[in-house]
Amino acid sequence: MAKILVLNGSSRENGNTEQLTDVMLEGVSCTRINIRDFLIQPIVDKRHDPAGFTKVDDDYDRIIELVRQHDVLVFATPIYWYGMSGHMKQFIDRWSQSLRDTRFSFKEEMKKKKGFVVICGGDDPYIKGLPLIQQFQYIFQFMGLEYIGYMIGEGNAPGDVLRDERAIGQAKYWNQFFRSL
Amino acid sequence: MAKILVLNGSSRENGNTEQLTDVMLEGVSCTRINIRDFLIQPIVDKRHDPAGFTKVDDDYDRIIELVRQHDVLVFATPIYWYGMSGHMKQFIDRWSQSLRDTRFSFKEEMKKKKGFVVICGGDDPYIKGLPLIQQFQYIFQFMGLEYIGYMIGEGNAPGDVLRDERAIGQAKYWNQFFRSL
Amino acid sequence: MAKILVLNGSSRENGNTEQLTDVMLEGVSCTRINIRDFLIQPIVDKRHDPAGFTKVDDDYDRIIELVRQHDVLVFATPIYWYGMSGHMKQFIDRWSQSLRDTRFSFKEEMKKKKGFVVICGGDDPYIKGLPLIQQFQYIFQFMGLEYIGYMIGEGNAPGDVLRDERAIGQAKYWNQFFRSL
Amino acid sequence: MAKILVLNGSSRENGNTEQLTDVMLEGVSCTRINIRDFLIQPIVDKRHDPAGFTKVDDDYDRIIELVRQHDVLVFATPIYWYGMSGHMKQFIDRWSQSLRDTRFSFKEEMKKKKGFVVICGGDDPYIKGLPLIQQFQYIFQFMGLEYIGYMIGEGNAPGDVLRDERAIGQAKYWNQFFRSL
Repeated sequence: MAKILVLNGSSRENGNTEQLTDVMLEGVSCTRINIRDFLIQPIVDKRHDPAGFTKVDDDYDRIIELVRQHDVLVFATPIYWYGMSGHMKQFIDRWSQSLRDTRFSFKEEMKKKKGFVVICGGDDPYIKGLPLIQQFQYIFQFMGLEYIGYMIGEGNAPGDVLRDERAIGQAKYWNQFFRSL
Repeated sequence: MAKILVLNGSSRENGNTEQLTDVMLEGVSCTRINIRDFLIQPIVDKRHDPAGFTKVDDDYDRIIELVRQHDVLVFATPIYWYGMSGHMKQFIDRWSQSLRDTRFSFKEEMKKKKGFVVICGGDDPYIKGLPLIQQFQYIFQFMGLEYIGYMIGEGNAPGDVLRDERAIGQAKYWNQFFRSL
Repeated sequence: MAKILVLNGSSRENGNTEQLTDVMLEGVSCTRINIRDFLIQPIVDKRHDPAGFTKVDDDYDRIIELVRQHDVLVFATPIYWYGMSGHMKQFIDRWSQSLRDTRFSFKEEMKKKKGFVVICGGDDPYIKGLPLIQQFQYIFQFMGLEYIGYMIGEGNAPGDVLRDERAIGQAKYWNQFFRSL
Repeated sequence: MAKILVLNGSSRENGNTEQLTDVMLEGVSCTRINIRDFLIQPIVDKRHDPAGFTKVDDDYDRIIELVRQHDVLVFATPIYWYGMSGHMKQFIDRWSQSLRDTRFSFKEEMKKKKGFVVICGGDDPYIKGLPLIQQFQYIFQFMGLEYIGYMIGEGNAPGDVLRDERAIGQAKYWNQFFRSL
């Protein structure tokens, strides 16, 4: 059975992204974390610094350990300003550091995994969320992650997305999919 | 004469984005800041919290004060993972808080300004940077900022972009433009 | 009750696009045409010719008459080379001529209508079909058509799409929507 | 020396796309054709018809012969309705037939070539032309064509683009590039 990790990028509890992901993963065994609960320092790009990256004292490695232990990564983020949340972006930016990590081969491990994307927003997300969907395509391509699929939901106030039947319909389809993994 | 503010989203000094922006603004009077030099807390989305947003003790307001004092905002960011840097994203995410700020009307002020985008990346930026260009379109549209234009450069190691003649050609065109403002 | 017109851009009978559209509109009263059954001459751009557009002797006006008589336009096209079919493109290109037609105000009439898009393709359509979805956004925006939504299906050989449960799930959601119009 | 073929998709003579391409290729030896001067029948998708594609009596093969004899293909098209012209789309749609042609291996030959894209439009082409740039990415990727680059110009009435200094600047950069091939 595939081990699923949900990386929630929302800044608030029980937001639409979380609710939609819950519908999608109802009855599916998985690990869920909120990136906001971890201290993640912003990247300092030292790819071309002779001394290389400096060890950073924060919770980043704890998330990476979880990532390494799972087969499917669900990136669930509200659409903030037509992109992923800053919380999630800070986390992904740090992957550049992991690519230079000599303790393990980040890229080799990642390319055996699969990725899925859930995004929710209030301003025409089915159209204005598409650049974000495309951005994840390039991220997954670079890391060799298989792009299973994505799901878009509409909502502003918490609970809105549960009334977005278009999203709920998709969530039910994907629920069958994740149950069968 | 238009007052120009460059918001640099890079995590390192003297990177390609900064170098390309320097060519573009050679001889042009402007204010430049590195977002990384300011402490910016991540947004906590309280749009639907009855108590509203909580005052955050960091340097965000200092940047916003600069934003308010300028007419043209140049968003200069390296392409990290096919998007703007986490530093810049954290900053823009906080705009949601400014939209609720009662001390001034953020949206009213912003819609009198103009925006410009400079992005640099190492992995096929002229194609894979396009979702980011489109994201800024939606950001500017939402805020009512006029989208003057954008510039893309290619480079990994610092200095690379100065050898990207396609980018330098564009930078010279825009230099004329900014000199004429 | 809204009058619905399906404009099918496929070059073959009973292809995936048609099948998916059929599921979507099951039990919904609508008019369906295959653009390939009409002779549509390519546009000759005479917007800046003092003599204006020349009358073209083909079936274009017959489709436009149908368009004018309906409230909702469903653009259903296979993804050919990551875009709409040439048949459909030739038809839409001719709209430039209709915009100069003095017999009626094409734009005034169109902006009271709504648009919907169905696309099917074989090569990763959920990702590689997104530029086409964005193109329709700009087309509808220009004409003032409300963009109701879109639906993507996967399939090469006829019948494939009926096994794409992700698409069929969407089709059922939209079926409810169209029944309620 | 690389042999360059310009495939012009415009429906009118001496339009902006043609003018911009002329600046780009000034002094560069190349073959230029207007697709509109050739009779190209629309594709009839017979990929899944047991009898296969039917021979079509038109000028398509004449263009394909030219394509085969050149190393670099410049796709120059006005932006009609936020996509390539119907003329060019009809031509590219027929590639599906060439892929089944047993007289030669279309894909094998194409993947040794390189592609370049020139697009011109009147409605915010630097932003609203981006889906078309992305579409060509997928077309080239599928065929194995190397995507050299692209150029965007702004203009409605013929001659407009010659006053778009942003485009002319790019054209001059690419002129150096094509002279060096």
